[in-house]
Amino acid sequence: MRISILTICPEQFGSFLETPLISRAENAGILKMEIIDIRDFAPGSFRKVDDSPYGGGAGMILRCQPVLDALDSVRGENSHVVILAPSGRTFTQADAHRLSEEEHLIFICGHYEGMDARIFPHSDEIMSIGDYIVTGGELPAMVISDAVMRLVKGTIKEESVRDESFENGLLEYPQYTRPADYRGEKVPAVLLSGDHKAIEKWRREQALELTEKHRPDLLI
Amino acid sequence: MRISILTICPEQFGSFLETPLISRAENAGILKMEIIDIRDFAPGSFRKVDDSPYGGGAGMILRCQPVLDALDSVRGENSHVVILAPSGRTFTQADAHRLSEEEHLIFICGHYEGMDARIFPHSDEIMSIGDYIVTGGELPAMVISDAVMRLVKGTIKEESVRDESFENGLLEYPQYTRPADYRGEKVPAVLLSGDHKAIEKWRREQALELTEKHRPDLLI
Repeated sequence: MRISILTICPEQFGSFLETPLISRAENAGILKMEIIDIRDFAPGSFRKVDDSPYGGGAGMILRCQPVLDALDSVRGENSHVVILAPSGRTFTQADAHRLSEEEHLIFICGHYEGMDARIFPHSDEIMSIGDYIVTGGELPAMVISDAVMRLVKGTIKEESVRDESFENGLLEYPQYTRPADYRGEKVPAVLLSGDHKAIEKWRREQALELTEKHRPDLLI
Repeated sequence: MRISILTICPEQFGSFLETPLISRAENAGILKMEIIDIRDFAPGSFRKVDDSPYGGGAGMILRCQPVLDALDSVRGENSHVVILAPSGRTFTQADAHRLSEEEHLIFICGHYEGMDARIFPHSDEIMSIGDYIVTGGELPAMVISDAVMRLVKGTIKEESVRDESFENGLLEYPQYTRPADYRGEKVPAVLLSGDHKAIEKWRREQALELTEKHRPDLLI
């Protein structure tokens, strides 16, 4: 898979590119990730990528030309273009599975003060990672890239994915590791029983109970 | 405000600490952000922070002792402890406002393969940033820190926040900047009219229309 990220803040991706998930996938030849600086496509020595909004208001708006020229420079026949913006549809695990099948993902990171509305029709979809505002599309691009890459064959063990929250419509059951007694707090006896059927039943019940308690909306 | 982040991957925060929002707030004395390495609290030369799950299954589970000892090292009377986990309540802009009033936020980043369930009761709340799975709580901690810090007085201009998506229960209206005609795509005439009342009315209508189209759930 190839992932191209268009941003006016390329330096924000430094640590992300070095995370084990991303660097291992790159070293294994599963992923090619490139960070494109939108400023490189802005004219003049000022490299002006934004300007004040028509009609007045606070903040600076990303201009059409540098963003669309940056997009043209990487877009191919099999590219799937996602704009990250708070007005987008909310990203879910089902989207992560869908996007993990793409050959080439392009993420356009807007600064959340705004992006010229004429840019949006040039994308295949507009996505938000949740009902809150962050400074720009950079963290959302990392979040979606991480969620997607975990599902690409060869990056992590498949059995790790299967039992996770949201994969079967429920939150994950509670997990415990050694010691069996930590300052008086004990691990549920069934988990120490060695009875795999009973353990599976307990985990199913706990997952359902946790979901009912914390996220009843997932059960509707 | 003080933000302490407990993680087994402190290196992932390198670029985040240098973003303008965070570094400016630190330089202005508004924010003190510290990244605590949970491994520093694990015993022995192996610094073992995780172990296999009781009852079997894939993945490694974060152990109670290093996490809770790391927590003890920073927790004070006015600390508010948030564990980032997929089983948490979904973070929203209302939570960002609420957390922006805290004096000391502590985020515990779990690796999403799992965290010993006995750690959870030591937190004030458990939060997720959305219905999808990422490798760990590190990106979610950055997302929440960014969303919260934007709302702390002195970090960004207040009028920038007021009109944003979710702040008034609607998505933000479309924004435009120069040129008025980009390859035949024109800015709506009303925005060039100078008629501020008409502009405000148009923006309100557009925000409502966009919300109805993309996020009807916000209008219920």
